[in-house]
Formats: sequence, C-alpha cells, structure tokens
Amino acid sequence: MTNPTEIKALVFDVFGTIVDWRSGVAREASAFLQRHAPSLDAFAFADAWRREYSPSMEEIRSGRRPYVRLDVLHRENLVKVLERSGIAGVTDAEIDELNLAWHRLDPWPDALGALNRLKRRFIIAPLSNGNIRLMVDMAKRAGLPWDAILGAEVVRAYKPSPQVYSETVDILGLAPAELCLVAAHNGDLAAARRLGLSTAFVVRPTEHGPNQKTDLKADEAWDFVVGDLNELASQLDASID
Amino acid sequence: MTNPTEIKALVFDVFGTIVDWRSGVAREASAFLQRHAPSLDAFAFADAWRREYSPSMEEIRSGRRPYVRLDVLHRENLVKVLERSGIAGVTDAEIDELNLAWHRLDPWPDALGALNRLKRRFIIAPLSNGNIRLMVDMAKRAGLPWDAILGAEVVRAYKPSPQVYSETVDILGLAPAELCLVAAHNGDLAAARRLGLSTAFVVRPTEHGPNQKTDLKADEAWDFVVGDLNELASQLDASID
Repeated sequence: MTNPTEIKALVFDVFGTIVDWRSGVAREASAFLQRHAPSLDAFAFADAWRREYSPSMEEIRSGRRPYVRLDVLHRENLVKVLERSGIAGVTDAEIDELNLAWHRLDPWPDALGALNRLKRRFIIAPLSNGNIRLMVDMAKRAGLPWDAILGAEVVRAYKPSPQVYSETVDILGLAPAELCLVAAHNGDLAAARRLGLSTAFVVRPTEHGPNQKTDLKADEAWDFVVGDLNELASQLDASID
Repeated sequence: MTNPTEIKALVFDVFGTIVDWRSGVAREASAFLQRHAPSLDAFAFADAWRREYSPSMEEIRSGRRPYVRLDVLHRENLVKVLERSGIAGVTDAEIDELNLAWHRLDPWPDALGALNRLKRRFIIAPLSNGNIRLMVDMAKRAGLPWDAILGAEVVRAYKPSPQVYSETVDILGLAPAELCLVAAHNGDLAAARRLGLSTAFVVRPTEHGPNQKTDLKADEAWDFVVGDLNELASQLDASID
C-alpha cells in the first residue's frame, strides 16, 4: 500500500467524480428538447448520449482510429442520438451549442471546497478524457482551481490506455506512487494501479441517477476509499500530522 | 490588424515576459557559487547558462534530436557551464537542486495583478518553452493564476517552430486571430503573426540586465505595444467599452 506521506500530486477523473454530468447534460438538453421533441425525457437523452461515450473512445484506444479530441466524439455521438430519436431539422449551430453542455457541468457540492484545500499541499489536475478546452471552460465557469490541465489530450490517448497514466507520471516528474488518481470508477483506478499510481475511490452513488448499479463500492483495497473529497483531504491531512 | 474585441484567449511567453529569470537564477546560483567558486559572478553565471538555452533547443527544432523537455536541456546546459567554469566535484543531487532554479523565478511586479485582471475576461495560459512541471511549480510558488499550462511540452516542439502556435490555436478551438501571444521578444511575436495570431509586445528592458541591447522596442506594428501587463489589460478593457 502507498505511504500517504509520499503523495505529491493528485489527478482527478472529472465526469462523475468532480462534476455531475447527468444533471448538467439533462439541464442543457431540456431546453433543446422543448423545441424539438417535447415528449422526450431529458435524463434519458443524457443517458443515451453518454452510452455512446465509451464505444466512441474504444475506436481510438484500439488503434482503429487516430486520436481526435472528445469534443469531436461528443458531437458525432450527439448526431447519432438525434437520428435514433427521430429528431430532424436541427441546425449545425444548434448541435454545436448543445455539444457545449459538457463544458458547463456543475461540480458535486464537496468538490470546490475540497480542491481548494488539497491545492495547498498538492499539485492538482484533471486526468480526464475531456479535452483541454472543455476542461478549461468547465473550470472557469465553476471555479475549479486546477494547477494544470492534464489528461487525454496532452497524451493523445484515452483512459484506461496505460500511457495516459504513465506519461502523466513522467510529465509531473514523479515516481508512480507519488501520483494519486482520484476517481469514482473502479476500472479507472485498476488501470492506474497497474502502472503503480496511488489510488483514491470516491463514491458517487447517483452519478447515473437514482437507480445506479455500478461503482457503489470499492472493488479493490484502494489506498483511500472515501464518501467525498473533503474526507480525502482530511485523511491526507491526518497522514502527515 | 486584429480587432481587439475578437480576442478570446491570451497566451504568454514566460521567461523574460512574466518572470525575471536573470535575477532569479542569479539568486539561486549565488548560494551554490559561494560553496564552489566564490570568485564567480552569479549574474554572469546566469547569463552563461541562458546562452546555452537557444542552441540546445535548436537541436530539437532542426529535427536532429527528438523532443526532450526543458528540464533535461537545462540540466545538460548546466553541466556544460560548470565544466567550462572549471567547477568540479559537484554531486548529482546539487546539480538537480540548482536546476530547479528555473522553477523558482519571481514574476515582474505587474504580472500577478494584471493576470488576475485578464483572467476574468480571457482564457490565460503560458505558451512557454518551459515544461509543464516547471510551469506548475513556478505558478504555485508565485501564485500565477493560469487556466491551463500550454506550450512546448503539450505540442512536443519548441518555439518558434510554427506548430507550437498553430496546434495551440487548435487545442483552444479558436480562430488564429482570437488568440493573442503576449511576449517581450519580437522574434516570438513574428513567428506567431505568421500563423495569424494576434500579438502584444511588452517591453522588458532589463530582462538581460542593465545593459540590454535587444527587444527594447517593437520591431513591427504589433497589435498591442505596452510598457507592462496592466497597460495591456487597460487597452483590452477600453476596446470593449
């Protein structure tokens, strides 16, 4: 297990771990659906859009397609969902605008305070599959105090491809265990642990809505298992007292 | 000329434009020289180290050497300067420590206030040849409020290679003129202008010490020519009033 006193930097999964993507996308989709398909449920629309997320990245992870940033995949996936939902006659400008929903997600209630607290002792950065501009827009709107924007676009690969973790360790000039991935997803943490990173699981039991079935508990003995990010900050503080 | 109201993001040269590298490196070298070569002048040492900067990057810009980050070049250049100065018997740990001088540079007096002001309206980021960890350490120590760390390491190329500017425009999802490079160096601005970026020249007449001969004035009609970064913020504010 990691000795917590050696951790120098914390990197964070963002969609689900830092921000509530489902409520945010549903909020943005709601106004759009009012105009184009008022009978459709905005949360179901958000879920349908998100279901295309992992398959679209898999094309790139597998090497079948060169890296393109997530804004591009999100837009392609949105077009698919619109077609499948029978929504036609949408202008390109409307699609571009709705695609920015992912740039305007709100943080979970504990995130801002805890990140500001963690930033005093650690380098903090997103390690998200979201692209740099998406992360910058989100951070500026919400006040997320990142020290840098790391993640997929810097490495030009998508998690959980191993180079996303290993190249981020290298960029930060750290030993793997000195870098801790904080995520609400066991799969992300498992990939990070295989590369020697420290791991922190934060439970986000409503990321997928009230009937969530996945990632309700830690599947492995992660270095930290916490209910929110303030709890993580407190455990890290306690480790050096 | 650029219409100032279209600028969406500002990227900054850092060494010389945001921070006073010469005083900072001399300060850090001073303690080192006290131990190893008390007769050597710390400013001359800083200048000698910096003289190796551009030639070392030129190896990479020319394609003769694959990209390595600036921390690596700085260390190689330091070893050269030590040898040339006849300083022997320095441990690897001491060299590593002195190499971090570049992570601990102080901003010019106007930089922090102006950056905080510019951050309210624009995306702000370094576009430096310094690597990500160097920029993060510098920003955390000095309080530089960057929205992201862009520059050489993200693109894996060194300014003034054109892809550093063009790929940064692409990462930010902007039209070239929507991105303004702020720099104290005419050559950097000329390279940015060739790619269509907006340009702001800030005069830093003592970057190279009291007898500076270069970059004392704008060599072209840059979009903005200012005495410090507050003046730039005021001109940008005035352009939207």
